Amino acid sequence: MDFVITFSENEKAFVAKVSGDIDAYHSATFKQKIIEHMDNIDKKIIAVDLSEVSYIDSAGLGAIVSLIKESKKHEKEVVLLSLQNQIRRIFEMTKLDKIIRTEDTIEEV
Amino acid sequence: MDFVITFSENEKAFVAKVSGDIDAYHSATFKQKIIEHMDNIDKKIIAVDLSEVSYIDSAGLGAIVSLIKESKKHEKEVVLLSLQNQIRRIFEMTKLDKIIRTEDTIEEV
Repeated sequence: MDFVITFSENEKAFVAKVSGDIDAYHSATFKQKIIEHMDNIDKKIIAVDLSEVSYIDSAGLGAIVSLIKESKKHEKEVVLLSLQNQIRRIFEMTKLDKIIRTEDTIEEV
Repeated sequence: MDFVITFSENEKAFVAKVSGDIDAYHSATFKQKIIEHMDNIDKKIIAVDLSEVSYIDSAGLGAIVSLIKESKKHEKEVVLLSLQNQIRRIFEMTKLDKIIRTEDTIEEV
């Protein structure tokens, strides 16, 4: 399956929409592509749209944890958007939902 | 550098002492070796001694997040022990210290 990240921006946030699995094969790309943009983003919020992500493994979770670190360095906040149910469950079980904000839609960011 | 996990037990906890980097090369081994034991451990606490770990990357952080999930399934708690300063900083920066207990010594577990 292809792995694609599409970037856009609205009034409030820089949006990175991910399509594909965030797994051992793609987690480095996922992280790098988003970090690459951090220096050039003037928005304070980086919204990562996960509506088209149906699988994430521990490498992917680690990549998200790294994003939290990088965003803090850049004085930005990463917000995860539109998690599918199985992805939401993983965030709840790992307690990662305690350290990263998740929202249903971009309007709620 | 070699990657070794040594298992032991005291009155309070099952202890997994890790020597080596918890990185992309070793994170799967790290996770599997500890999860393998979970069914057979009668102690409620699994202490992961990191005193001989000087490097952890995002794959390693993901593996630790997975351990949190697995320990919850097994009704156990993972506690990280004796973090070196650079490792402690990574846990603080990524906010993972908010979702996993860390202690200086096994006596404090």
